[in-house]
Amino acid sequence: MSKSAKKRPTPDGDRRSGCPISIALELFGDRWTLLIVRDLMFKGLKRFGEFAEAGEGIASNVLTDRLARLEAAGVITRAPDPDDARMFIYRLTSKGMDLAPVLVEIVLWSARHERTDAPPAQVRAMTQREAFLARMRRDWEQEEP
Amino acid sequence: MSKSAKKRPTPDGDRRSGCPISIALELFGDRWTLLIVRDLMFKGLKRFGEFAEAGEGIASNVLTDRLARLEAAGVITRAPDPDDARMFIYRLTSKGMDLAPVLVEIVLWSARHERTDAPPAQVRAMTQREAFLARMRRDWEQEEP
Repeated sequence: MSKSAKKRPTPDGDRRSGCPISIALELFGDRWTLLIVRDLMFKGLKRFGEFAEAGEGIASNVLTDRLARLEAAGVITRAPDPDDARMFIYRLTSKGMDLAPVLVEIVLWSARHERTDAPPAQVRAMTQREAFLARMRRDWEQEEP
Repeated sequence: MSKSAKKRPTPDGDRRSGCPISIALELFGDRWTLLIVRDLMFKGLKRFGEFAEAGEGIASNVLTDRLARLEAAGVITRAPDPDDARMFIYRLTSKGMDLAPVLVEIVLWSARHERTDAPPAQVRAMTQREAFLARMRRDWEQEEP
C-alpha cells in the first residue's frame, strides 16, 4: 500500500469497515495466506516451487494470487533469484515479520486445543514469547540482503 | 469436536496437514469467523441478529454456517434466549476465550501497519498484554451462567 493510500480517512472506500481485525482479515483471512507467511517465517522457504510443495497442496494459481497480494500489502518483497534469474526469491518485510506474534499465538492455541503434530520443544520455545520473538527478529535481520 | 475425535492420530484423515497453523486456519481461516469471535469477545454481542448487524454485512447463510462450525469446534455454545425461547444466545467457551491473544495480536499488527479506526486508548490497553488478557478472562468468568 502506498503512503498516500495510508493517509486516506477510514474506512477506505474499498474496505468493509475500519475495524483492525476486519482489515487484517481482508488481507490474510483465508485458508492459505498465513501458511505462506509460515513457510517464509518458520521454514526458511523462499521460492514459488518450495511454497507449492510445502505440504498442504496449495494450487499454483492460488499461490500466485496470494504472493501478489502479500507483495502489494508490503508483507513480502521479491527479487530475482541469484541462482536462476527467471525465478524470484521472496522475503518477509519488517511488516511481515511483525506477523510473528499472530502466528505464535495461533500455534499455541492450536497446540493447546487441537490434535497437532507441532513438536513439543518448539511449542515450549514459543511460550517463552519475548525471547522467541526476539530470536526470530534477530535471525531475520541477519539474513538481510 | 468430540473427545474421541481429538484422540485420533494426526494428521486426521480430513485434515490437509498436522501443522497447528493449518489446523487453526481450517477452522477460522476465512474473512468472517474471527469477526464473530470478535463480536462475542469485545463487543458483548450474543444473538444472531446482533452479529448480522455488526457492521461488515455478513450474509445470513454465512453467519449460520460459521456459528455451526464454531459450535462444532467447541469455540462457542448456544442456549435458548431467556427473552425469546425461539432464539439463541451464543457464548464463547474457555477454548473460544483462548483466542483472545490471537485477536489482540491481530489488532496490534493492524493498528501498527494499516489505517484503522481502532481507538488509540484500546490499542494502548492491549499493549499491556497480560493485564488486558487477565481482565478479559475475569469478565468472561463473571458472566458465566
